[in-house]
Amino acid sequence: MTNKVKKDETVVLVDTNFNKYFIDTGGKTDKYKGVGVINPVDLVGIEYGKLTKIKDKEFWIFKPSLMDKFHGLKRKAQIILPRDSAHIITNCAIESGHTVLEAGIGSGSLTIALANAVAPNGKVISYDNREDFIKHAVKNLKTMELDDFVRTENRDVTKGIKEKDLDAVIIDIPNPWDVVSHAWKALKVGGYLCTYSPLISQVEKTVDEIKKYGFIEVKTYENIQREMVVSKHGTRPSFNMLGHTGYLTFARKILL
Amino acid sequence: MTNKVKKDETVVLVDTNFNKYFIDTGGKTDKYKGVGVINPVDLVGIEYGKLTKIKDKEFWIFKPSLMDKFHGLKRKAQIILPRDSAHIITNCAIESGHTVLEAGIGSGSLTIALANAVAPNGKVISYDNREDFIKHAVKNLKTMELDDFVRTENRDVTKGIKEKDLDAVIIDIPNPWDVVSHAWKALKVGGYLCTYSPLISQVEKTVDEIKKYGFIEVKTYENIQREMVVSKHGTRPSFNMLGHTGYLTFARKILL
Amino acid sequence: MTNKVKKDETVVLVDTNFNKYFIDTGGKTDKYKGVGVINPVDLVGIEYGKLTKIKDKEFWIFKPSLMDKFHGLKRKAQIILPRDSAHIITNCAIESGHTVLEAGIGSGSLTIALANAVAPNGKVISYDNREDFIKHAVKNLKTMELDDFVRTENRDVTKGIKEKDLDAVIIDIPNPWDVVSHAWKALKVGGYLCTYSPLISQVEKTVDEIKKYGFIEVKTYENIQREMVVSKHGTRPSFNMLGHTGYLTFARKILL
Amino acid sequence: MTNKVKKDETVVLVDTNFNKYFIDTGGKTDKYKGVGVINPVDLVGIEYGKLTKIKDKEFWIFKPSLMDKFHGLKRKAQIILPRDSAHIITNCAIESGHTVLEAGIGSGSLTIALANAVAPNGKVISYDNREDFIKHAVKNLKTMELDDFVRTENRDVTKGIKEKDLDAVIIDIPNPWDVVSHAWKALKVGGYLCTYSPLISQVEKTVDEIKKYGFIEVKTYENIQREMVVSKHGTRPSFNMLGHTGYLTFARKILL
Repeated sequence: MTNKVKKDETVVLVDTNFNKYFIDTGGKTDKYKGVGVINPVDLVGIEYGKLTKIKDKEFWIFKPSLMDKFHGLKRKAQIILPRDSAHIITNCAIESGHTVLEAGIGSGSLTIALANAVAPNGKVISYDNREDFIKHAVKNLKTMELDDFVRTENRDVTKGIKEKDLDAVIIDIPNPWDVVSHAWKALKVGGYLCTYSPLISQVEKTVDEIKKYGFIEVKTYENIQREMVVSKHGTRPSFNMLGHTGYLTFARKILL
Repeated sequence: MTNKVKKDETVVLVDTNFNKYFIDTGGKTDKYKGVGVINPVDLVGIEYGKLTKIKDKEFWIFKPSLMDKFHGLKRKAQIILPRDSAHIITNCAIESGHTVLEAGIGSGSLTIALANAVAPNGKVISYDNREDFIKHAVKNLKTMELDDFVRTENRDVTKGIKEKDLDAVIIDIPNPWDVVSHAWKALKVGGYLCTYSPLISQVEKTVDEIKKYGFIEVKTYENIQREMVVSKHGTRPSFNMLGHTGYLTFARKILL
Repeated sequence: MTNKVKKDETVVLVDTNFNKYFIDTGGKTDKYKGVGVINPVDLVGIEYGKLTKIKDKEFWIFKPSLMDKFHGLKRKAQIILPRDSAHIITNCAIESGHTVLEAGIGSGSLTIALANAVAPNGKVISYDNREDFIKHAVKNLKTMELDDFVRTENRDVTKGIKEKDLDAVIIDIPNPWDVVSHAWKALKVGGYLCTYSPLISQVEKTVDEIKKYGFIEVKTYENIQREMVVSKHGTRPSFNMLGHTGYLTFARKILL
Repeated sequence: MTNKVKKDETVVLVDTNFNKYFIDTGGKTDKYKGVGVINPVDLVGIEYGKLTKIKDKEFWIFKPSLMDKFHGLKRKAQIILPRDSAHIITNCAIESGHTVLEAGIGSGSLTIALANAVAPNGKVISYDNREDFIKHAVKNLKTMELDDFVRTENRDVTKGIKEKDLDAVIIDIPNPWDVVSHAWKALKVGGYLCTYSPLISQVEKTVDEIKKYGFIEVKTYENIQREMVVSKHGTRPSFNMLGHTGYLTFARKILL
């Protein structure tokens, strides 16, 4: 039994360099970046997962996975990489059904990870004080079919959080310390705060502030990912490595 | 409005050293390790998240989070740590509703992470050829209230996988290369295989085997976690560090 | 032709666990820690590098190398490890014939590395404001036969450096920023300052101060050493790892 | 008292981007790469360490340090970086007066480090089976004024080592295992073998071979260097990082 592309599905085309392109098979004939001018309906009937020539180039077609969504994201701001969002979700114990708040939205890369984690019954609330970022991120979320799980707000999170009983609050802004008191109020008992900061001074100011409120299990981590190159000649770490992304600080709400 | 422990809830008690103890408030008077002899019903009415004296020792009580479940796990075999299960779930694009297979079950630490990720509608199938490991892991899963999302099988995964259309297959056995062909057959198109191995030679044999079958996006990573110690004096990486856990190899099924 | 232990040599005995014991074969019968009661002259005539039974235990005997000296050091304070002294010597371009200043002396581990590097015609000047550390370190240096290349001073380096035209100044005290102006005056043009600090805040205060004076090529590094365990089963990084030693900041004197 | 450039000195010019150019002030008018057409004698009288305009560009002039020599090296082959040569010298306990052998010579970067370490009375013997590499490296060594401490040999080290009683043997060729037996014969008792290899498989074959001969203290290390970026905004590890250089295996000769 084979599995073929149907009409009105969003699919991802993966070329042999592993670039990824999202196409809605219900869309209209247009120039699709990286693929060329095609009528998306022509994709209907192609077998999923089988290398297929489309407009002079070969592609595999898949139903988009979370990893495809990360790779297919259009970037506007610096993004939180999957290696870090993986740790955020695990250390904040985020799961299906949870309600979590993030600020800011950036390009929506963390939003995608969070939306995927809380679906189908949970919700991500995403604050950003820049309307252009929100618009860009929402466009990404629509492409990834995750917009139903996200509510955006054009708000400055340092002015306060209006939600209550949140399962987690994740802050990726330059001054996360200004959100600590708001996060404490907005979290449920036992809920998690996470801040993501590239600089040690940001971590220090944030941890200082966290210690003034009812938080326990305060931990800061750096996650370093090394790719291993495995070839016929042998194995070694990749020469090509991202030296740093950011420090992740976690804390859990208690009552004082 | 306060939030208090009710009857027949499973709660986690966290002492001031952050040791964690799981108790079912519907249980009977007994000696609870780390807490002492108590009648669990006496916990009913205690405020969640407020430091409270119970039998001469102070505890916070929470509704158990995923992190509590990791910390409260009773270990029998070497476990896969949250830092690695976080990457497994993200890189295998595992989400609510998925059906995934793991082998072996070990102490159930990865099982807990996977069960939490696929809940409430998905399923984890866990093979192990040692009945004692399965029993031990299932006990952990029951304590964590995640047993409903897991089906265990006393089977040797190198002999074959009977399931089809799996979203992901995660292998943590000494000879993962012996499962590669079975995993290819059992996976859905676009599904992910992950193997976890401490040794480079295991990675090499596995990648060699993976290359014989229809897999793309074959990547091997090592994830290194450094804790940062933030104190009044300043910040530095912790002197105390786990130098290695294992290499994670990922691959995605295509049709040839 | 064999090579045998002679009278009045200092030798190192290495047991099969690679513990190292320094003995002067011209010494008197005594209880030698780790070896037992022996008359050192009994070692004379034993073949170097051949496993030999001495007092019920087996040892290899060598003429001490720099690495033996590091391993044989008696510790009183926290030491600078060979992995870091290697970088200090290379990045400060220290070589035979140089005159370098260090403060404080600690247990003398960096002193040993520096003395070895500047010998036979150079000199290490070592300031420490604790006479007990100086005494302890000098004892180590005498055992290692490196005391001829070191001059110690019971002085507080934050009060000033009386030497001029130094090839390098290496500072391992809690407040290295208080030495920066003194180091600038004491260095030759093109000479190097190095500070060793475990904390980021120390690095920041030191770099701030360095920028006020005539220094270029200001760099801060962290050197992480991973041991690889190579066995019949395969190879992996050691689980056992020191997570952090210290940050090394280097700067080079210019004229303004 | 000022310190000025004299005639017939080799100096290093450092521009404000920290590029480095070696010039012999006794040389003839020529086009000097990175500096322009100059008569080197015009540099005579310039103050060392003072930013000075030379042909429309500003430079500091120094008497070359070891670090200048590393930075000024012309590369032909992949080089061993100072971070690794520092560890080679320390772990092989190389010091002034030693006689050490290296193979191959590559661009001469390790040769420079070794020559600097054994000077003024020691010797580096450098084998390479490619005359073009030897010529290129010797040219570098002459520029760095270290050629007096090096003797090159156009020989294949896997065919044997003719020297005896060497203090250290350092092997940077693709098949270091083919040199292990020769190295054992050529080393003094207590002398060190070091091999540098990017791949785990090379390490494994080498360690296998080492274990067949009289060697103890067999250790393999990977040294990871992270640069820390210290700015007004705060401190973080550099995003830009070299993910891997090579594995260093050390072993020490004993008699069996």
